[in-house]
Amino acid sequence: MKLLESYVFIRNQSKIICEKLEVEDYVVQPAEFVSPPKWHLAHTSWFFENIILKKYLSNYRVYKEEFDHLFNSYYKSLGSHWMQSERGFLSRPTVKEVYQFREHVDAGMTKLLSSSEVDSKIFKLIEIGLHHEQQHQELLLMDIKYILGLNPSMPALSHNPAHPYKENPEQWSDQREGVFEFGTSDKSKFSFDNESPRHQEFIQAHQISNYFVTNGEYLKFVNDGGYNDSRLWLAKGWDWVKQNNINKPLYWYENDNTLFEYTLLGATKINPLSPVSHVNYFEADAFARWSGNRLPTEFESEIFMSKNLNLFNDEGISFHSKSNEIIFNNLWWWTSSSYQAYPGFTSFEGSLGEYNGKFMCNQYVLKGGCFGTAQGHLRETYRNFYYPEQNWMFSGIRLAN
Amino acid sequence: MKLLESYVFIRNQSKIICEKLEVEDYVVQPAEFVSPPKWHLAHTSWFFENIILKKYLSNYRVYKEEFDHLFNSYYKSLGSHWMQSERGFLSRPTVKEVYQFREHVDAGMTKLLSSSEVDSKIFKLIEIGLHHEQQHQELLLMDIKYILGLNPSMPALSHNPAHPYKENPEQWSDQREGVFEFGTSDKSKFSFDNESPRHQEFIQAHQISNYFVTNGEYLKFVNDGGYNDSRLWLAKGWDWVKQNNINKPLYWYENDNTLFEYTLLGATKINPLSPVSHVNYFEADAFARWSGNRLPTEFESEIFMSKNLNLFNDEGISFHSKSNEIIFNNLWWWTSSSYQAYPGFTSFEGSLGEYNGKFMCNQYVLKGGCFGTAQGHLRETYRNFYYPEQNWMFSGIRLAN
Amino acid sequence: MKLLESYVFIRNQSKIICEKLEVEDYVVQPAEFVSPPKWHLAHTSWFFENIILKKYLSNYRVYKEEFDHLFNSYYKSLGSHWMQSERGFLSRPTVKEVYQFREHVDAGMTKLLSSSEVDSKIFKLIEIGLHHEQQHQELLLMDIKYILGLNPSMPALSHNPAHPYKENPEQWSDQREGVFEFGTSDKSKFSFDNESPRHQEFIQAHQISNYFVTNGEYLKFVNDGGYNDSRLWLAKGWDWVKQNNINKPLYWYENDNTLFEYTLLGATKINPLSPVSHVNYFEADAFARWSGNRLPTEFESEIFMSKNLNLFNDEGISFHSKSNEIIFNNLWWWTSSSYQAYPGFTSFEGSLGEYNGKFMCNQYVLKGGCFGTAQGHLRETYRNFYYPEQNWMFSGIRLAN
Amino acid sequence: MKLLESYVFIRNQSKIICEKLEVEDYVVQPAEFVSPPKWHLAHTSWFFENIILKKYLSNYRVYKEEFDHLFNSYYKSLGSHWMQSERGFLSRPTVKEVYQFREHVDAGMTKLLSSSEVDSKIFKLIEIGLHHEQQHQELLLMDIKYILGLNPSMPALSHNPAHPYKENPEQWSDQREGVFEFGTSDKSKFSFDNESPRHQEFIQAHQISNYFVTNGEYLKFVNDGGYNDSRLWLAKGWDWVKQNNINKPLYWYENDNTLFEYTLLGATKINPLSPVSHVNYFEADAFARWSGNRLPTEFESEIFMSKNLNLFNDEGISFHSKSNEIIFNNLWWWTSSSYQAYPGFTSFEGSLGEYNGKFMCNQYVLKGGCFGTAQGHLRETYRNFYYPEQNWMFSGIRLAN
Repeated sequence: MKLLESYVFIRNQSKIICEKLEVEDYVVQPAEFVSPPKWHLAHTSWFFENIILKKYLSNYRVYKEEFDHLFNSYYKSLGSHWMQSERGFLSRPTVKEVYQFREHVDAGMTKLLSSSEVDSKIFKLIEIGLHHEQQHQELLLMDIKYILGLNPSMPALSHNPAHPYKENPEQWSDQREGVFEFGTSDKSKFSFDNESPRHQEFIQAHQISNYFVTNGEYLKFVNDGGYNDSRLWLAKGWDWVKQNNINKPLYWYENDNTLFEYTLLGATKINPLSPVSHVNYFEADAFARWSGNRLPTEFESEIFMSKNLNLFNDEGISFHSKSNEIIFNNLWWWTSSSYQAYPGFTSFEGSLGEYNGKFMCNQYVLKGGCFGTAQGHLRETYRNFYYPEQNWMFSGIRLAN
Repeated sequence: MKLLESYVFIRNQSKIICEKLEVEDYVVQPAEFVSPPKWHLAHTSWFFENIILKKYLSNYRVYKEEFDHLFNSYYKSLGSHWMQSERGFLSRPTVKEVYQFREHVDAGMTKLLSSSEVDSKIFKLIEIGLHHEQQHQELLLMDIKYILGLNPSMPALSHNPAHPYKENPEQWSDQREGVFEFGTSDKSKFSFDNESPRHQEFIQAHQISNYFVTNGEYLKFVNDGGYNDSRLWLAKGWDWVKQNNINKPLYWYENDNTLFEYTLLGATKINPLSPVSHVNYFEADAFARWSGNRLPTEFESEIFMSKNLNLFNDEGISFHSKSNEIIFNNLWWWTSSSYQAYPGFTSFEGSLGEYNGKFMCNQYVLKGGCFGTAQGHLRETYRNFYYPEQNWMFSGIRLAN
Repeated sequence: MKLLESYVFIRNQSKIICEKLEVEDYVVQPAEFVSPPKWHLAHTSWFFENIILKKYLSNYRVYKEEFDHLFNSYYKSLGSHWMQSERGFLSRPTVKEVYQFREHVDAGMTKLLSSSEVDSKIFKLIEIGLHHEQQHQELLLMDIKYILGLNPSMPALSHNPAHPYKENPEQWSDQREGVFEFGTSDKSKFSFDNESPRHQEFIQAHQISNYFVTNGEYLKFVNDGGYNDSRLWLAKGWDWVKQNNINKPLYWYENDNTLFEYTLLGATKINPLSPVSHVNYFEADAFARWSGNRLPTEFESEIFMSKNLNLFNDEGISFHSKSNEIIFNNLWWWTSSSYQAYPGFTSFEGSLGEYNGKFMCNQYVLKGGCFGTAQGHLRETYRNFYYPEQNWMFSGIRLAN
Repeated sequence: MKLLESYVFIRNQSKIICEKLEVEDYVVQPAEFVSPPKWHLAHTSWFFENIILKKYLSNYRVYKEEFDHLFNSYYKSLGSHWMQSERGFLSRPTVKEVYQFREHVDAGMTKLLSSSEVDSKIFKLIEIGLHHEQQHQELLLMDIKYILGLNPSMPALSHNPAHPYKENPEQWSDQREGVFEFGTSDKSKFSFDNESPRHQEFIQAHQISNYFVTNGEYLKFVNDGGYNDSRLWLAKGWDWVKQNNINKPLYWYENDNTLFEYTLLGATKINPLSPVSHVNYFEADAFARWSGNRLPTEFESEIFMSKNLNLFNDEGISFHSKSNEIIFNNLWWWTSSSYQAYPGFTSFEGSLGEYNGKFMCNQYVLKGGCFGTAQGHLRETYRNFYYPEQNWMFSGIRLAN
């Protein structure tokens, strides 16, 4: 019964995120890495239908055969799938029908969850499905921001007031060297396969910053010619800067000699005290080098989080990053760690084996969380990961040395 | 007053074409050459606002400044414009707002047309604006067909019954050689700049077919290995076939060993007696070579049309091509003529100089018309033009030799 | 016996063109449209081996089987061929071996030509082979210029003195309207298939310039902002200008505020009295529009040449374009005519059917000739053709109105 | 004096590698990652001229100013450089002149090395220059193999006999868990910046194979459908397989149903007992997964090498990989470790800071060495690195679990 409540709550969250959207906002795909919001709503339902309902609910009627193909994201073991780059080509199914699909799946899931058929294996799959839905809720916010932010009218999604800024006493947190354990230990709680097994790493003595880098600090880097000095950049980063004529973070723009940024609350003047966001790995790395510091590793970040578990903020979705204080879910921060398997890693069984392992190449780990991250994902072992050129997630910079 | 009536009638036609669309259908752009339907509705209004209202209606209030940029298609002399390939990135303005923009423009135009300010120069511009709108009505039908036809659900736009097939007695129409005149002569009627000046050309004796090539005839070409025989193709055509793995016309598809085609009436079995449509210049040329014939020139086609002016069908929009009989607005047919300026050509004045002349490179002329072509455009001097690889317009094959 | 002499003379010309090259110059391919000089030397020999020797010389031993594939240019009917864009990937066969291949083929051809087996059919094929070789001699000069001109050291191929400039009395040559005949009439002389059949065209009264546009005149266009004014350009031309940041002709460059051009005689200051060369169709068309004139058609150009057949210069290869006087082989000039089949066109038989016809799409005709054009090709019916963006041939501008 | 001997010896090695090449082989660039051999010969001389001679040899005359630009590889701090993808566009300087450039630089270096001006700073720079030259010697062999192997004639570079195969008694070498030290400790010996600082890592207990995976074993993977089973591949690896239609390693090809591979000794039948080579990271990773094992980390590999330092083979250049026995310089092996900075990493000073650090993104470490690796580079701390899709280096597979 508890799982049913969670199911209803989490599924409803996806709808709440979208409730201010116009029908048109659900449909477009202005970049390959962005998915139309209606696709997220359909894909998360596809997950429950294909991974659970088809196999475990007797007499379940598939909503529409063609959705198997249309809303499969990348699971090769579940057949062919519509190309990711062409998700925005589809006007049908309509948004209305996508919601009907969700209702159909929810009815099936409610029936299953109310029955006595949910053994521990099915329980595990449903749990994954719900965490999967929550990951897509954050993606929804990222994608909606990209869709609205690219639009010349830059509409706001929300009008909640911004969070006040709060200063912290100490810049650096010290850590002595030693062998520490990392990854999931408590098997009674949910975690993704990539967080296991728990294992030891030797960590050097180091310092990690209690603060996020602020817009004001980042602006100094910009004004100091940071985007014009090749020595600060990784070779691939420099290519990215030159090929795309980058000279400031995504969502920053200039108007009448004043700097603004687009946020989900609408366009606003750059606040120098807020943490800089939407930087990619190249920018985070270049800033760190310019400042005489470096990015922390994922393990340094995990120790830091373990020592400060009280600092997760539980306000829930607020549609904006907040301040530079030491709140973990202000922003994700880039680590210098390549996203690789832990020693002894084994992936989820069956089709879900494609969930994480096959992406362990050329991506970097981010730690922390953001306003769009589900409470359940705010844990020190969670490993978020993106390609170094990507910057549309809610990413910031935490320094180390 | 007569112009106001035309204005109201023509502007309303655009809305009629779209009345069966879902909101989502208005927004997507599944190929660079396709524009979202809402873009067409906005751009045609932009035309009246920028070419006429801003200059000639006193106290006209521009609907929204940002639309100047967003809905300019390619008029460099009117400032910058949103990139054509990114029209499908825009969820806003919403469809509802686009219709409000149309109403705003229509109110302005009604005011202008009801006033005494419409001199012959303004009259001419409005006339161009209306013909422009009609050209976009045909583009709307082409683009809607592409959007719906690419969708796995292949929805129908209309359910009108198909036109019955009617046979014609003679295949070939003969023409003796001689010097003939081509282009517009009657200055009292509207024509585009590219139809002038009227001038002489020497024409060889030739035959031109009274029929369109049918699906059945085209299928023989396909089954004879037409798409596998490089000798039948222009070099660029062969590259197109190989690079895109083409083996049948756009909108044809196979299901359970049966050939179907998508039409605006929905999916239907290939009718061997209907004219083959949606072929590009390469396919038309290869078919003609295979059949031992050739494509007619634009001048041969114009003579043929002049001799048979009674053969334009006036049924209006019927959402499908009809039969292979000698009706001119069944389909456009490809001519072998490169789209070039007539001797002594001068383009429209001012910004409208960008309407036609600058596109006179690497395109080929099509003659005739189709169910989506406005009655006013069904004339023997009208020159339609597309790139040789394009096939999403309602194009067919008429042979000559 | 006469044919053997021609064979020896023409084949030797190819070697003369290359005699100043370093081995390295024979190998590179700095653009897809450029072929390595050794490829030209091998391909022209391949032509004789595959079209003639294999079929008509008994006991002919093929030099190397693998050359069938390596040195086929685009004859699909003669099997697969090495990709054009990868000709510069091949270090082997070496230049030395390519010359051995030529000798082997020449030995075979000499044997055939000395025998009694050369009937009229073989004669015709050899004749085509020799004209083919001559076309590649001009391509060799174009490609060598591109290879050396792109090199920072800009080496000269020749040190012959430049031709003196000579002024002409009248700018314009007048032509009355009428029906005229075009194309080849004398069947006793060689011509390519695309020059036939001779046929009539109606020509408007017009003027055509006795001069080529000079560097000095073109510089006025440049300094008047010609490359910045979209109204002067075809839409595709404007895209070409913007995408490639073009602001002057190929081979022009600036050094210490002085304009230079690279020629086969080495780098030299721009001579304002010399004809401007290496312009593409877009530039020629934009200049003509800027000057208030237009480009001539291919038929206007053919009449002009017919009336002045004495004006072909017979100096032979001089490695540079000359003056702006009315010498036909100073430069090719762009016509406004799309390269299309003449009425009743039939291509050469067999594999040679791929010689010309399949390229009749999206190219434009050039008339005249240049210093690199074989004497035998200097005739009024010769049709040269290139794509509108191409500019590495010796192309200039002749105006009409 | 000892350094001068090394200088002469090492510089001469580059010439020995190239002594069998034809002039043409020095010039071509059949892929962006391949450099023409003459470029390597010039670039290594450029390094001595720009990093050392210009600054430290009084009265040194620069060979040619334009070489500063032409032969700079990627040192942004030393000015602009010719684009890497266009190195094969340059026919000049000729091979002969490149050798003259080398002689000019060698004369300068000999003068400098014979003088008393070589302080420890200059010594260090020269040492780097020599190690740099040695790295390019291996690149020369890789690039020559690619150039010759792609050629249909597949010429051999050498005719040395192949090394006999020798079996090893035990498959696996065991290692207990613990904290170990990695990286350079002996400051008296040369090492690259990326091998420092020496630092500790915690290592899990593991096994590592004494053998390389053989052609025979790899063939089982191929025949078992390894290239058709998406579950075995990283997502990026699967895209690489599909987009390039890969079904066997680079240099393998089939002829009359027999598998061959191109080696620098020429084409040869696949020897099932030889180690499989020229696999990329994706293939190595997929094979390891298929076999139920995994790739070792760079640290596991370094421990393994430390325990077996006697197993470097000192035969010198033999132009082919050898056997599957435990010889370290048979082949490089892929590790699962992303190429990252060691804790506390600082790059070389000045322009040489661009040597290694800026490439620490999206590459993977390889350990070991190959027949083309300089003796001086055969050390357990050496870190080689390539992008996961690259396969033209002499790379093999060593398993772990």
